[in-house]
Amino acid sequence: MSIFEQRESSIRAYARTYPTVFVTAKNARQVDDKGKEYIDFFAGAGVLNFGHNNERMVKAMVDYMQNDGVLHSLDMQTDAKARFMQKFTDVILTPRNMPHKMQFMGPTGTNAVEAAMKLARRATGRHQVVAFSAGFHGMTLGALAATANQYFRQAAGVPLLHVSHELFDQAHDPEAALQGLEQLAEQYRDPSSGVEPPAAFLVETIQAEGGVNVASTGWMQALEKLAKEFGSILIVDDIQVGCGRTGSYFSFDDMGINPDIITLAKGIGGVGTPMAMNLVHPDLDKHWSPGEHTGTFRGQNLSFIAGAEALSYFEDDTLMSAVDVKAQLVRDVLGPLVDEKSVQEIRGRGLILGLDMGSGEVAAKVVQRCFKQGLMLGACGSGGRVLKIIPPLTIPEADLTEGLEILKDAVRFVMEEAA
Amino acid sequence: MSIFEQRESSIRAYARTYPTVFVTAKNARQVDDKGKEYIDFFAGAGVLNFGHNNERMVKAMVDYMQNDGVLHSLDMQTDAKARFMQKFTDVILTPRNMPHKMQFMGPTGTNAVEAAMKLARRATGRHQVVAFSAGFHGMTLGALAATANQYFRQAAGVPLLHVSHELFDQAHDPEAALQGLEQLAEQYRDPSSGVEPPAAFLVETIQAEGGVNVASTGWMQALEKLAKEFGSILIVDDIQVGCGRTGSYFSFDDMGINPDIITLAKGIGGVGTPMAMNLVHPDLDKHWSPGEHTGTFRGQNLSFIAGAEALSYFEDDTLMSAVDVKAQLVRDVLGPLVDEKSVQEIRGRGLILGLDMGSGEVAAKVVQRCFKQGLMLGACGSGGRVLKIIPPLTIPEADLTEGLEILKDAVRFVMEEAA
Amino acid sequence: MSIFEQRESSIRAYARTYPTVFVTAKNARQVDDKGKEYIDFFAGAGVLNFGHNNERMVKAMVDYMQNDGVLHSLDMQTDAKARFMQKFTDVILTPRNMPHKMQFMGPTGTNAVEAAMKLARRATGRHQVVAFSAGFHGMTLGALAATANQYFRQAAGVPLLHVSHELFDQAHDPEAALQGLEQLAEQYRDPSSGVEPPAAFLVETIQAEGGVNVASTGWMQALEKLAKEFGSILIVDDIQVGCGRTGSYFSFDDMGINPDIITLAKGIGGVGTPMAMNLVHPDLDKHWSPGEHTGTFRGQNLSFIAGAEALSYFEDDTLMSAVDVKAQLVRDVLGPLVDEKSVQEIRGRGLILGLDMGSGEVAAKVVQRCFKQGLMLGACGSGGRVLKIIPPLTIPEADLTEGLEILKDAVRFVMEEAA
Amino acid sequence: MSIFEQRESSIRAYARTYPTVFVTAKNARQVDDKGKEYIDFFAGAGVLNFGHNNERMVKAMVDYMQNDGVLHSLDMQTDAKARFMQKFTDVILTPRNMPHKMQFMGPTGTNAVEAAMKLARRATGRHQVVAFSAGFHGMTLGALAATANQYFRQAAGVPLLHVSHELFDQAHDPEAALQGLEQLAEQYRDPSSGVEPPAAFLVETIQAEGGVNVASTGWMQALEKLAKEFGSILIVDDIQVGCGRTGSYFSFDDMGINPDIITLAKGIGGVGTPMAMNLVHPDLDKHWSPGEHTGTFRGQNLSFIAGAEALSYFEDDTLMSAVDVKAQLVRDVLGPLVDEKSVQEIRGRGLILGLDMGSGEVAAKVVQRCFKQGLMLGACGSGGRVLKIIPPLTIPEADLTEGLEILKDAVRFVMEEAA
Repeated sequence: MSIFEQRESSIRAYARTYPTVFVTAKNARQVDDKGKEYIDFFAGAGVLNFGHNNERMVKAMVDYMQNDGVLHSLDMQTDAKARFMQKFTDVILTPRNMPHKMQFMGPTGTNAVEAAMKLARRATGRHQVVAFSAGFHGMTLGALAATANQYFRQAAGVPLLHVSHELFDQAHDPEAALQGLEQLAEQYRDPSSGVEPPAAFLVETIQAEGGVNVASTGWMQALEKLAKEFGSILIVDDIQVGCGRTGSYFSFDDMGINPDIITLAKGIGGVGTPMAMNLVHPDLDKHWSPGEHTGTFRGQNLSFIAGAEALSYFEDDTLMSAVDVKAQLVRDVLGPLVDEKSVQEIRGRGLILGLDMGSGEVAAKVVQRCFKQGLMLGACGSGGRVLKIIPPLTIPEADLTEGLEILKDAVRFVMEEAA
Repeated sequence: MSIFEQRESSIRAYARTYPTVFVTAKNARQVDDKGKEYIDFFAGAGVLNFGHNNERMVKAMVDYMQNDGVLHSLDMQTDAKARFMQKFTDVILTPRNMPHKMQFMGPTGTNAVEAAMKLARRATGRHQVVAFSAGFHGMTLGALAATANQYFRQAAGVPLLHVSHELFDQAHDPEAALQGLEQLAEQYRDPSSGVEPPAAFLVETIQAEGGVNVASTGWMQALEKLAKEFGSILIVDDIQVGCGRTGSYFSFDDMGINPDIITLAKGIGGVGTPMAMNLVHPDLDKHWSPGEHTGTFRGQNLSFIAGAEALSYFEDDTLMSAVDVKAQLVRDVLGPLVDEKSVQEIRGRGLILGLDMGSGEVAAKVVQRCFKQGLMLGACGSGGRVLKIIPPLTIPEADLTEGLEILKDAVRFVMEEAA
Repeated sequence: MSIFEQRESSIRAYARTYPTVFVTAKNARQVDDKGKEYIDFFAGAGVLNFGHNNERMVKAMVDYMQNDGVLHSLDMQTDAKARFMQKFTDVILTPRNMPHKMQFMGPTGTNAVEAAMKLARRATGRHQVVAFSAGFHGMTLGALAATANQYFRQAAGVPLLHVSHELFDQAHDPEAALQGLEQLAEQYRDPSSGVEPPAAFLVETIQAEGGVNVASTGWMQALEKLAKEFGSILIVDDIQVGCGRTGSYFSFDDMGINPDIITLAKGIGGVGTPMAMNLVHPDLDKHWSPGEHTGTFRGQNLSFIAGAEALSYFEDDTLMSAVDVKAQLVRDVLGPLVDEKSVQEIRGRGLILGLDMGSGEVAAKVVQRCFKQGLMLGACGSGGRVLKIIPPLTIPEADLTEGLEILKDAVRFVMEEAA
Repeated sequence: MSIFEQRESSIRAYARTYPTVFVTAKNARQVDDKGKEYIDFFAGAGVLNFGHNNERMVKAMVDYMQNDGVLHSLDMQTDAKARFMQKFTDVILTPRNMPHKMQFMGPTGTNAVEAAMKLARRATGRHQVVAFSAGFHGMTLGALAATANQYFRQAAGVPLLHVSHELFDQAHDPEAALQGLEQLAEQYRDPSSGVEPPAAFLVETIQAEGGVNVASTGWMQALEKLAKEFGSILIVDDIQVGCGRTGSYFSFDDMGINPDIITLAKGIGGVGTPMAMNLVHPDLDKHWSPGEHTGTFRGQNLSFIAGAEALSYFEDDTLMSAVDVKAQLVRDVLGPLVDEKSVQEIRGRGLILGLDMGSGEVAAKVVQRCFKQGLMLGACGSGGRVLKIIPPLTIPEADLTEGLEILKDAVRFVMEEAA
C-alpha cells in the first residue's frame, strides 16, 4: 500500500480520478513518477491560468526567497504586498475607474466568499443571501449554504440557513429567466409575500463547477438592477472565471455592471500558491472595523510576488488575444462532436468551455479514457455530466491541439462503446 | 498616502499596530524599509516556529521549484506530498502509536476546524458542538460559531448556531472547573435537562488568542472521559500551540489523552506558506465520502517541502530541549515583573507565554513602546490585556535576551508612566 | 378612562376598529351597551358560521352544564367527546370515504397548524415546509414562520426558519401559477438546484386573511400531484374556510383532492367556544407516540356539545343550499360597484367574499363608515385593501340585504368623498 | 372498538391512563359511564382549582348564555370582559401595587408563553431566552424550545433554537444553585465567554410537570437580580401554580420579586373553559403595536364570566386558609410513607405536592392501582417518577382524606409487591 492508501483520509478524490504520482510540471504538461506526460486541461481547477511553474513567476519567487524577503506577514505591510497592490491598482482598477478597496483574508475562495457574505449582512442588517441553482461557492459553513450541490450540502451535518436559491439564467429560455428576476422583484415589493429583499445576491457569471453555465449580459444587468432597487449587495464570485479566464480580466468586463464586491482567489496568486482577495466598494468597505475578519495566512508574499508577475500579462493584449484564438480552436476541433450528436452542447466563454455529455457516467468514462491517453480533464455539473476544458491560458497551441484530439477520440471511443 | 492607505480595506489591523513596511526577515529578526531591525516575539501569530526564511526550508523550496516540482495539485498525489506524509508518519505518528489519517483541506486553520466540526456532526448525527470560553477557532461561519470573542461574533451578521460555550479550565479554581464538567455529565444523563450530549467538544490545550490560558492535564483527561462517555468526538485544536510550540510536538503529548481529531495549521507548513491538516482517527475518517469537503489549495507542495524539513527538527531532542531552556530564560528575566507587581501573572508552557497586564490599555502601550524599541509583540486575551510571547523556537538566545530586556524595560516604563 | 384603556395591553386591535362595548348578540346581530344594533358581516373572523348564540347549541350547552357534564377533560374519554366524534364520522368522514383520524390539541388554529407541521416533519425527516404568499397560519413560532405577512413576521424577534414561501395561485395568470409549481418540481428533481423537496405544503384553498384569494381546482390538483411525487405531506389549512363556509363542509370538497392533513378550528366548535382538530390520514397518524403533542385545553366538552349540534346542519342540504342563494344575493347587490369601478373586484366562494378596494386607506374608511351605520365588517389582504364579507351562514336574508345596502352606500360615500 | 379506538389519533395519552368514559363531574369527583365514582387529585392538570362544575360559575355562565351574552369577541370590548378586567384589577393587581397590563391571546398556556417570549425578544433586540432544566412551557415551536423534556423536544422535527437551558434551583444544594447564577453573571460580563445576556429568563417557581421542584425565595431573588443587571426580562410562568394553587394568588407572592411578565392560563378561566392572559409591565407592554400577536379565540366571554367568579375566592382569606389546612392534612397523612421509605420525598407548596417514588415504573403502578380504587392521580417529573397531588382547592376534607388513604394504600401495596 502506498502512503496515500495507508494514511490519507478516505475523503481524497482526485487521487482516485488520476491514480498516479506526479513529479514535475511545466506550463500545460505534468509528468508522473513513471515519466509519463500528461497534457493539462484541468489547470488545478482553474488556478493555473499562467501555466505550471511559470518561469517569470518562479524566478521572481526564488529571487525573493534568496534575498530573505518576508514570507509570512498576516496583514502587516511588506514591500512585496505594496508592489502587488500598486500593480493591481494600475493595471486592473484604474483603467476601469474602479474605486474598490482590496481585502485580504484566509487564502482560499471559501474564505473570500465568507468575508463577502459577512460584510453584506452587516452592512444591510439583513440575514438572507440569494444564491443560484448550480452555484458553487465553497465548503465552509457560510459559503456552503450558498453552494447548491446536494452532495456537498448533505455533508454539512447541520441545517444550512440564511441562503435561498433561485434559478440561474437559463440559456434555453432567457425570457423566463428574466421573468424569474421580475417575479422576485414583485415578491420583494409585496409585504405579504413572505419573502424579503436579501442582504446580497451572490452569483457567478459562468458557473464553472456547476456545469459551465453562462449568464447572459441581459440577465446580469437585470440582476444588478434588482439588487440596486432593493438595497441588496451584488457579489460576483469571479474565483474560477476571473483573472483572464474568459479572455478579459474580469468575467463581467463587457457587461456594463458594477458589482459591489468581487471575490477573487485561484488565479490571483499566479502560480498556484494560495491567495484570496475581495474587491470591495469603499461605501461598503467602511462598514468593516479593524480585524473583524482575520486569517493567519492573509499575507502571502510569495503569492504577491507571483501574482504581480501575473498582472504583467494584462498590461497589453497579447495573452487575452491568444485566449480568443485558442477558444476558437477548441470550438473548431470539437464542433463536429456536436454535429454528430456525441456531445449535446459546447458552451462557455474564453478558455472555459464545457462539453455537455448528457450523462455523468459517460463523462466519467471519457475522463478515464483521456487520462490513459495522456490528457487530464475534469467533469463538472449536475451528476458530473459536463467535461470542463480549462487549460492554462498560456498553453502552446500544439499542446492544445494534441489534447483536443485525444479528447475527441476519447469521446468517440466511449460513445461507440456505449452504442 | 501609501498604497495601503489608498487601497487596502479598512479591516486591516496589524498594519496599524506595526506602522512600517517590512522588507526582509531572517529567523527571529525582521527589517523594515528604513533598515530598522525588529526582534520578533510574535512569529506570525505562531506560524514561524522555525524562524523566518529558515535556510534549510528555503533551500529545499528553491531546489524544488528549480526542478519544476508540481506546485499546485489539489488532492492529487505528488512525490512531495508522499514524502511529507511518510515523514509525518515516521517522525510523529508511529512513535506515538497514532493510527490517525491525514486530511488536507483549504490551507487555513478555520477550514481545518470547519472540516472537523462537519465530520463530528455527520458521524454522530448531532448538531451541537461544545466549545469553551475564550476559545478561538476561526472566522468562517462554522468555526466562528465556536470562537468565543464577542468582537468577532458580532461581525457575523447572522445568528451563530449549533455551538454552545462552557467555561474553560480555571487555573484559579481547578476544583470548580472539574465540577463544571461533572455538571455537564449530569445534564447529559438527565433527559429532562434540556441539554443533550454534543457532537463534539472542541478545545485548545492552551488558549493562545484567548489569553494564554493553560488547561491542566486533569481537566483535559476529564474532558476526554466526558466525551467518551457520551459518544462525543474530542477535537483538539492544536493550530497555534502544536508543532513543537510547547516543547513537544503536540501540546497534549504528556497528558495521556487520545483526541479523535487534531487540527493543525500555522506551523505545519514550516516556513509560513499556507497549509492545514487534520489528523482523524480511522474509525471516524471512514464517515467521509470522496470529495465531500474540498478546497482548491488543499495540495500545497511548497508547504509539503518546507513542512517535511520542519519535521526533521523532531527527529531528535535538540530543538525541544532548547525550547525548555529558552522558556526558563523568559521566566527568569520576566519573573521580577511579577514580584514587583508590574505584571499580574506569567503563564504558559514552553515558548508560548503570557504576561497578564490586567488591562488592555496598558498592554497596548507596552506593545507600542516595544515596537519603538525594536521588538514585535502581540496582545491577546479579553480586551487585549495579555502580552503573548511566542518567538520562533529557533530564536538565538542572544536575540531572546535582548528582546526580553526591551520588553522588561517597556513594561516598567509604561507602569511608571501610569503610576 | 375605561378599564380597557387603563389595563388592557396596547396590542388590542379590534377594540380600536369597533370602539364600543358589546353586550348581547343573536345570530347575525350584536348589540352594544348603548342599545345600538349592528349587523355582523365579520362573524368572529369566520368562527360564527351558525350565528351568535345559536339556540340549539346554547340549549344543548346549558342542558349539559345543568346535568354536571364534564367540562374539562384533556384527552380523557367523555361521552360528549364520543358523541361528537361519532357524529363527525357519520356526517362528514364516512360519506366522503375519508379514513382520517381526529387529533385534538390546544384549541386554537395556530396550535393545529403547529401539530400538523410537527407531524409532517417527523414523518418525512425533512425540515422545510413550503407555504404560500399571503398565507395566514397563526402566531406561534412554528406557524408564524408559515404566515406570510411582514407585519406579523417582524414581531417574532427571532429569524423565522424552516419555511419558504412560494407564490400562491394567481387568478390573473393561472398558466404562470401552474408553471410555478412545475418549476418547483424541476428544482426538486435537480440535485444541483440548492432546493430540496419539503416536508409539507401548507395551503389554504381560499386565503381569508390574505385577501380572499381563491385557489383554482387545477392548481390545487397540481399541488397535490407535486406533493405526492416528492413524498411531501399536503396540509390544507381549512380553519377559516372549512365547516361550511364555502357552501360545502370542506372548502376542497369539489376539487378531487385528498389532503393528508386538514386543520380545523374556528367554526368546528359551533358557537364560538375554542376548539381545534386535525384530520390526519392513518398512514401519517401512526408516526405519533402518545402525548407527544399535548395541550391542557384539548378536551373542550362544551365545544364538543355545540360542535355536535353544528354537524346537524350537514345532515341535509338546507343550510348549504341557503349559502349558495345568499352568496348570489351578495353578488347581485354588490355587482354594480364593480361595474361603476368603485370596487376593483369581487371574489370568493360561498359566503366568503372579498371586495378589493385597491387601497387599504379607502377600505378602512368604508369599515369605519359601515360601523357608524350599524354594520360590522373587517378588512384583510395586503395593506388591508380587501373588505371581507363573512356573515354567519345562518344570517336571515333581510339582515343580509340590509347589511349589503349599508355597505354599498358606504363604498359609494367613501369613493365620492375621495373623488 | 370504541369510537376513540376507531377514530382518535394515536397521540391520545390520558385516555390510556384512565381507560373509561367519563360522564359527569362535581367538585372533586368524576363519574364514569358505569356509574363508578373517582376522587380527583389531578384536577385537569391544574386547571380545576375551584372544582368541576363549580356551582357559582355554572350558574353565572348559564345566566349569561340565556341572556344572549356575547360568547366570542376576539379582542373587541364586551361587558363580560370589562367586568373580569375590573375585578382582576381590584382583587389582584391593586392590592399588590402591580401596574401590569393584561394581554389576552389564543387561550392556551403555550400561546401565552409564545407571546411573552416574542415581546421579550422584541423589546431587548436579543434572541436567546434562558429556560431551566425540567421546565415545561408548552408545545408550539417557540415554547417547545423552552421545554426541557427530551420526549417532547425530539418530536419537534426541526432544531429548537434560541433558547438555552440552565440548571433550575437545586433543593439539595442551594449554595451551588446560587453559584450557578453567579457564574452566568460572570459569563455575561466577560466579552470572551461566548455567552451573552439573554432576552429573558423564563422560569416556574414550582416546576409542576417537571416533578414538583420548588424554587427557593433566595434563588428567585438572585434570578431577578441577574435579570435586572443584564437588562433581561424576567418571565414567571405561573400557568400551573398560579391562581391560588400555592395558597396565595401568585406563586411568588411572598418572594419579594416583581416579574416583568407573568403568564397565566389553566385556572384563570375558573371552570375549565380555555383562557390565557399575560400580565405585562407597562414599560414593556408599550413595545407592542396593535394586533402584532393575535388569536381568534382571545376573547372568551364564558371564561371571563367564570373567571370573574373565581376571583371572588380571593376577596377574602377563606379559600387560601383552607389550602393551608388541606396541605397540612396531605403531609400528615402521607408523611409516614417517607418515614417508612416507601417514598423518597414529599415536596411542594400549598396544594401542589409531589411524592417522589424514585422510579417511573413504580409511580405508574401506583397511578394504576389508585385508578382501580377510585382515585385519579397523575405522574410527572423525569421518567414520570413523581406522583403529583393537585386536587381542586375546594375539595371537601372528607374527599381529600378518602383519596389520601387510597393513595397511601396503593403506595404500600405497590412497594410490597415490588419487595
